[in-house]
Amino acid sequence: MFDSGLGGLTVVRALGELLPAEDIVYLGDTARVPYGTRSAETVVRYARGCAALLLEHEVKALVIACNTVSAVAVELLRAELDLPVLGVVEPGAEAAVRAAEATGARRIGVLGTAGTVRSGAYPRAVGRLSTRFEVVAQPAPLLVPLVEEGWLEGDVPRLAVERYLAPLIEAEVGAIVLGCTHYPLLRPLIERAAEALAGRPIPVVDSAEATARQTEALLQERGLGQEPGHLGGLQVLVSDAPASFATSAERFLGYPVRELRQVDVVLG
Amino acid sequence: MFDSGLGGLTVVRALGELLPAEDIVYLGDTARVPYGTRSAETVVRYARGCAALLLEHEVKALVIACNTVSAVAVELLRAELDLPVLGVVEPGAEAAVRAAEATGARRIGVLGTAGTVRSGAYPRAVGRLSTRFEVVAQPAPLLVPLVEEGWLEGDVPRLAVERYLAPLIEAEVGAIVLGCTHYPLLRPLIERAAEALAGRPIPVVDSAEATARQTEALLQERGLGQEPGHLGGLQVLVSDAPASFATSAERFLGYPVRELRQVDVVLG
Repeated sequence: MFDSGLGGLTVVRALGELLPAEDIVYLGDTARVPYGTRSAETVVRYARGCAALLLEHEVKALVIACNTVSAVAVELLRAELDLPVLGVVEPGAEAAVRAAEATGARRIGVLGTAGTVRSGAYPRAVGRLSTRFEVVAQPAPLLVPLVEEGWLEGDVPRLAVERYLAPLIEAEVGAIVLGCTHYPLLRPLIERAAEALAGRPIPVVDSAEATARQTEALLQERGLGQEPGHLGGLQVLVSDAPASFATSAERFLGYPVRELRQVDVVLG
Repeated sequence: MFDSGLGGLTVVRALGELLPAEDIVYLGDTARVPYGTRSAETVVRYARGCAALLLEHEVKALVIACNTVSAVAVELLRAELDLPVLGVVEPGAEAAVRAAEATGARRIGVLGTAGTVRSGAYPRAVGRLSTRFEVVAQPAPLLVPLVEEGWLEGDVPRLAVERYLAPLIEAEVGAIVLGCTHYPLLRPLIERAAEALAGRPIPVVDSAEATARQTEALLQERGLGQEPGHLGGLQVLVSDAPASFATSAERFLGYPVRELRQVDVVLG
């Protein structure tokens, strides 16, 4: 599994809860974080470098735990690599369509980085699943720094979230996708703010959970699942600043990282 | 002149106002932005790459328009390069000492990125100028994304700024240094918030202005100044995403960028 930095750890957490027997090698490309503001061409180069490094660890499947990479490079990596590749956009879109179908809504809302929104990946993924929904995607660039600063409650994150949610509520969306792997840490606040603005609860879809469920299904389908008795481990690799990564990681994972080392990502 | 991204344009602006005859080549290393969260070793590699690229443009002096690089690499680049090298930390520290000397205070406050604060560059620079002042440095990681999002007024930036200023006001600082080249865009709000919290105005020092004045002094001293009749131009180079850089640049510069192209920074 790889991400530009810390955010993908929310996918590690969801996967660990669902599939505790699986061994996970997680790469955070902290030397090049954030990906969300980079051009598609640059993101593709970075993604190839991350994938090549993980293949050296003899992984059986690759999870792209980053919305920006999933938005621009999942098809390409699938074509180039000889193993199953999962992104976070498709599972998130699928869960959102299911949630919105249970309502009368014609629109699905997405919060994401500038790069993810610009890519149009969510409208495409939703469009492949259903012609009923229009996607309203809102760039929310302050949410990643708020999460990294640890400001998950209080006036500053609440007012920022309300400002980003307002156009989605205005558009009467039937579900809101957290289109960035950092956002699950703000989920309680986002749910409360959406309910306060709309006057009723709106389903909030966490693509980390949805991706963990699709990974489970894929491993079962291909007969790739670990033996149930095995106790899965987590190995974390980062391309820069391991000490500060270790400090922040616990907030995303819910437990401390035990195995962490610095590596060089060679760009493709 | 170079910076990790957009922020250094506040130094371009200040230099252009003071020295309109000088030609400026500005490099924003947008493929690797932000530097503020990277390790010192990584920042040094990036800085060497940026400097090498600018030397190809036959510059007569190099201004490091980035606090993070100034904090960790200015001495090194001075030793390695055969031309005058200016950072933003020393001019900012000098202006702050002058401003604080006019008050009875014993402390100077600094707002900066995590990397700049961790480096201890401001306490060192102030300590070389005066033994009277203790430096209280406050990391303010949300201010760069707030500026890049264009949220310069309103509740969200005001509450964030108040939270970062509180420990400085508590410490009764005699001046506050804007220790990041993005922050001058928030200067009016920071000045109002500081006055509201302290109950009296506190001098806010903009290192962009201070750096422009030191550059002027250095060029004069070395006889390197441009002929006064010349009309200076600005050439902007970026290592990624030129279109979005051009859109944001005007907010930092006060006028649109006319000459902008994408380049590859080769790391040293």
